[in-house]
Amino acid sequence: MRQAMASAEVGDDVYQEDPSVRALEERAAELTGKEAALFVTSGTQGNQVAVATHCVPGQEIILEADAHLFLYEGGAASAFAGVQTYAIKGTNGMFSAEQVRRAIRPEDDHDPETGLICLENTHNRAGGAVISPEQMKDVYDVAKAYNVPVHLDGARLFHAAVALGQPLSSFTQYTDTVQLCLSKGLGAPVGSILAGDASFIKRARKWRKRLGGGWRQAGVLAAPALLALNTMVERLAEDHEHAKILADGIHGLHGLTVIHKVETNIILVDVEKTGHTSDTFVEALKERGVRAVAFDPYIVRFVTHKDVSKDDVMQTLAVLSSLVS
Amino acid sequence: MRQAMASAEVGDDVYQEDPSVRALEERAAELTGKEAALFVTSGTQGNQVAVATHCVPGQEIILEADAHLFLYEGGAASAFAGVQTYAIKGTNGMFSAEQVRRAIRPEDDHDPETGLICLENTHNRAGGAVISPEQMKDVYDVAKAYNVPVHLDGARLFHAAVALGQPLSSFTQYTDTVQLCLSKGLGAPVGSILAGDASFIKRARKWRKRLGGGWRQAGVLAAPALLALNTMVERLAEDHEHAKILADGIHGLHGLTVIHKVETNIILVDVEKTGHTSDTFVEALKERGVRAVAFDPYIVRFVTHKDVSKDDVMQTLAVLSSLVS
Amino acid sequence: MRQAMASAEVGDDVYQEDPSVRALEERAAELTGKEAALFVTSGTQGNQVAVATHCVPGQEIILEADAHLFLYEGGAASAFAGVQTYAIKGTNGMFSAEQVRRAIRPEDDHDPETGLICLENTHNRAGGAVISPEQMKDVYDVAKAYNVPVHLDGARLFHAAVALGQPLSSFTQYTDTVQLCLSKGLGAPVGSILAGDASFIKRARKWRKRLGGGWRQAGVLAAPALLALNTMVERLAEDHEHAKILADGIHGLHGLTVIHKVETNIILVDVEKTGHTSDTFVEALKERGVRAVAFDPYIVRFVTHKDVSKDDVMQTLAVLSSLVS
Amino acid sequence: MRQAMASAEVGDDVYQEDPSVRALEERAAELTGKEAALFVTSGTQGNQVAVATHCVPGQEIILEADAHLFLYEGGAASAFAGVQTYAIKGTNGMFSAEQVRRAIRPEDDHDPETGLICLENTHNRAGGAVISPEQMKDVYDVAKAYNVPVHLDGARLFHAAVALGQPLSSFTQYTDTVQLCLSKGLGAPVGSILAGDASFIKRARKWRKRLGGGWRQAGVLAAPALLALNTMVERLAEDHEHAKILADGIHGLHGLTVIHKVETNIILVDVEKTGHTSDTFVEALKERGVRAVAFDPYIVRFVTHKDVSKDDVMQTLAVLSSLVS
Repeated sequence: MRQAMASAEVGDDVYQEDPSVRALEERAAELTGKEAALFVTSGTQGNQVAVATHCVPGQEIILEADAHLFLYEGGAASAFAGVQTYAIKGTNGMFSAEQVRRAIRPEDDHDPETGLICLENTHNRAGGAVISPEQMKDVYDVAKAYNVPVHLDGARLFHAAVALGQPLSSFTQYTDTVQLCLSKGLGAPVGSILAGDASFIKRARKWRKRLGGGWRQAGVLAAPALLALNTMVERLAEDHEHAKILADGIHGLHGLTVIHKVETNIILVDVEKTGHTSDTFVEALKERGVRAVAFDPYIVRFVTHKDVSKDDVMQTLAVLSSLVS
Repeated sequence: MRQAMASAEVGDDVYQEDPSVRALEERAAELTGKEAALFVTSGTQGNQVAVATHCVPGQEIILEADAHLFLYEGGAASAFAGVQTYAIKGTNGMFSAEQVRRAIRPEDDHDPETGLICLENTHNRAGGAVISPEQMKDVYDVAKAYNVPVHLDGARLFHAAVALGQPLSSFTQYTDTVQLCLSKGLGAPVGSILAGDASFIKRARKWRKRLGGGWRQAGVLAAPALLALNTMVERLAEDHEHAKILADGIHGLHGLTVIHKVETNIILVDVEKTGHTSDTFVEALKERGVRAVAFDPYIVRFVTHKDVSKDDVMQTLAVLSSLVS
Repeated sequence: MRQAMASAEVGDDVYQEDPSVRALEERAAELTGKEAALFVTSGTQGNQVAVATHCVPGQEIILEADAHLFLYEGGAASAFAGVQTYAIKGTNGMFSAEQVRRAIRPEDDHDPETGLICLENTHNRAGGAVISPEQMKDVYDVAKAYNVPVHLDGARLFHAAVALGQPLSSFTQYTDTVQLCLSKGLGAPVGSILAGDASFIKRARKWRKRLGGGWRQAGVLAAPALLALNTMVERLAEDHEHAKILADGIHGLHGLTVIHKVETNIILVDVEKTGHTSDTFVEALKERGVRAVAFDPYIVRFVTHKDVSKDDVMQTLAVLSSLVS
Repeated sequence: MRQAMASAEVGDDVYQEDPSVRALEERAAELTGKEAALFVTSGTQGNQVAVATHCVPGQEIILEADAHLFLYEGGAASAFAGVQTYAIKGTNGMFSAEQVRRAIRPEDDHDPETGLICLENTHNRAGGAVISPEQMKDVYDVAKAYNVPVHLDGARLFHAAVALGQPLSSFTQYTDTVQLCLSKGLGAPVGSILAGDASFIKRARKWRKRLGGGWRQAGVLAAPALLALNTMVERLAEDHEHAKILADGIHGLHGLTVIHKVETNIILVDVEKTGHTSDTFVEALKERGVRAVAFDPYIVRFVTHKDVSKDDVMQTLAVLSSLVS
């Protein structure tokens, strides 16, 4: 993939003249079944460009209470787009159509206006839970009934597609816009995609410029990103298999509890009964060569990806076993 | 009170030269035990000036899920101050200190910064529920431990004070800033107060100007407001008594349920079992000369105030009785 | 006028049920030839509601370099509406159509989008200069050619109308929206008007709520405001006459220079040659019972209004004469 | 340089664990004489992070009327940071200390607060004009006297340093923060630097995250950027020499006028007398294999850089000669 960078054909993407970027954007539009796509510097930038393009100040966005957009983007949607956040606790990372219906504001001078509904699939803090196309359709139908657009934070949507054995477009047909991360599971060096209809992407391009995502030589990053898009999706199945092996192994270990059904490549483990906090547990793992992230005071997140082999999984289980015995 | 308007001594308040405004602000500061106070055009303006003065974009404000600031100010806090809203469902309009502690964000580049905790007392949508000084102290202690300021939407704080028989300062000692509405229960024509320490109010004055609340002849409004402050507080007890009579009467009526304990001057009534929606119920009341507000699809709000006599209450009960029989 | 307040018929304007407010708004719409009007708390609020309703973040507003909106509203347009300000130096408070044409941004991802053109008439810092309907038409034609809306800060538009002997609508036909101040020359206690087409005013109403301008009993202020609108316009001619007398008198005084042609009720005087700064000069006037405002380090502004009689003007000249001799 | 990308040592920069990024940031801090530096995705992002970190809504930033920050960043400073722009026309891209002094707002509730002074060096639209350290010092002294921070858009500061034969720190000592572009003259694939004191950069890091500039594997971009910083600065002298040759040649061509003294690598040419607009002129050049940019209706910009040899310059002159003869 780095070789792709080193030999990329480049041009000035600010003037939309970079052939590598255009090829990537066209391929991404095709995969998502949208009219157009835009290469952005990161998943956060893709989400923020989406919110700023969809919304105006005084509107409100509905999102799940554990969504990345709400928790991990520094409050940027309110800072940049001036929108209020209405965070609703769902089940396994997804609210129901009925919850959305009740959350949409009436037309009244006192109320904020519902401006956008945001989904996340797979859902990181719900342990990589897959939101099915049917669940997405139910919410999308409500959204359309009230004329509210839908944005999907699909940073891990490839995982959902592979987990259900369905094409990306099965999901993206039920959202107006979608952000796809190319640098997480797919392993591209940097970059995400924002896809939607042509007029949306035209306006989004300007917001990307404001956020500092307009690159003159983006081709060196788009080339490996396109390579990732074309070659790295199918292999996610292996990461999911590894995650299940890891989760199954952890089930047998004293004091560790896997707290969500493992559907993709994320395993959330409650370590409280070991006497550890997540911080001390992560530190102990690090000393033994295993990288994990402290999510909550007592929850540790493990992620499998292309650089984690089955041997690495077995080794991780051995380390965990020694830690809790 | 209108006579007070007609004879008010006025000056240019933008240059802080209006004697009526100064007298009002000084009296309000004294009552709240704060260094300074500011006359603003409305409760919403007082709350919005507070948020804009306390916060910067990228911060997050913690507020109760049914707070006026979250539901009925048009999303203004996010539009103007650029802050994200973190709405937490409390009990009777108040979250616990532990809920607040868990809601304060860690110091991490991904997270918004907790910039303000907002309380509401009495709490409108919790049926005029009184938040006790002890509850406020518990939250305030957490806030101070994390160096986060507290703002109180005290639009109805006089009601809380009268209900508990305590001075205003019993409550306001546990908040950094407070907004008091003079035109609701107290009956002044328009206007609210924002109180806090002197440096806060100095900066708030500039935000008030931005929001269009700088008046050159504010005295004509400040004079009746001061009169209200000095003469209309004690009589709120009567409104509370009337509200209890109304609630007690409603308890005996078929199909109507008072859904919160009535502590002050607000009565929320679930009308679903009557076959009415709140809208049709309010309309039927209006035709019979009774004013109430549809809160939720099936919840109707009644408010007692200085223009509602005991006879009016009895008449309202008679109307309600005929409506549900 | 205060009597009008004391006897106003009132209702809840938030629900648009206040008859005094409705009467005022309808009269203002009629005078300006617009579909609808909105009563706001101040000129600043009217301007800010206009900008927020017309614009979205990332847009730019074109305004004259000495406009009130640019200088004296605390940077609120950028803070609330997220718009960039492009201030252009005009002649006597007005830029030319050609200046506007050149200032409108091309469609390019790098550029802000021109979202609004703002005028001010009469122009305060240009010494109450009148912008003629012809000048307004020229700019309006350019604006329409580029599909950019126009807002007029008409805080003193009544003065322009009286000075040229033309109806208000001669001016307002060349702007999409207009703000009129009722508490300056017209002498109402507080309040301004924002007028425009019906859909604009509907959305403006929501922004007014956010800014804290939604009043439940606005009638006590709307009643005297309507009285002002109906009875106080014609008499502005007298203020203009007084201003000319004052200016003529000042011309004869050593060391004082009237720096703009006096067309309405504002007289700007350069005091530098007297050895005074504007601050010391204003202070000296104040001690002698004359109120004026320091505009710039050496410029003092005098304003004639309904409480300034011809005798007051002569007395002011006497004071000025003694000060500079 | 692409080889540097392909072999970069990487880590997770969001957790500040990427060695290539750390090495780049430390080197940039050293060169600018600042405590810390931050790798950002583009010059626009560096400028926007700077404004958002320095300022709060309601403030005003002073910038030159032709500054990149004012003209080419989509109005982002107002959209994100909520600041008003006060654009002042300078001479050769730089305003005087006295102009700045007069532009700083007084402390008054009506006025915006001056929150930041922005410089640009070299100045793009002034034809790559070099602002001397002495000019910067004069403005910096005024800024410090009024306690206002200064930010330098130093996208082309290396050019200024090379043109005057002075180290970068000669300039950066007179600014609080500076943005340096690594992908323009220096030829790195993408990326810019923002440098300032440690507490500023800590807060800037959070704004970068909001803008979507937090990268997990930034090392692949930081490695070539560091290489550029260490090896590509001195050679800018050659670009300047080429630019002078080009400008001298153009002086002899009929109908073309170089409109600024050429001090660095930018040549602005007025083509009006050729009968061309800048658009048609640029198109004609493009057909003949020469790339230039239309700046204004009649002004064309040429830039010399590492991929433009002396032969290319001579070839460009030949093309220009044939075009105008």
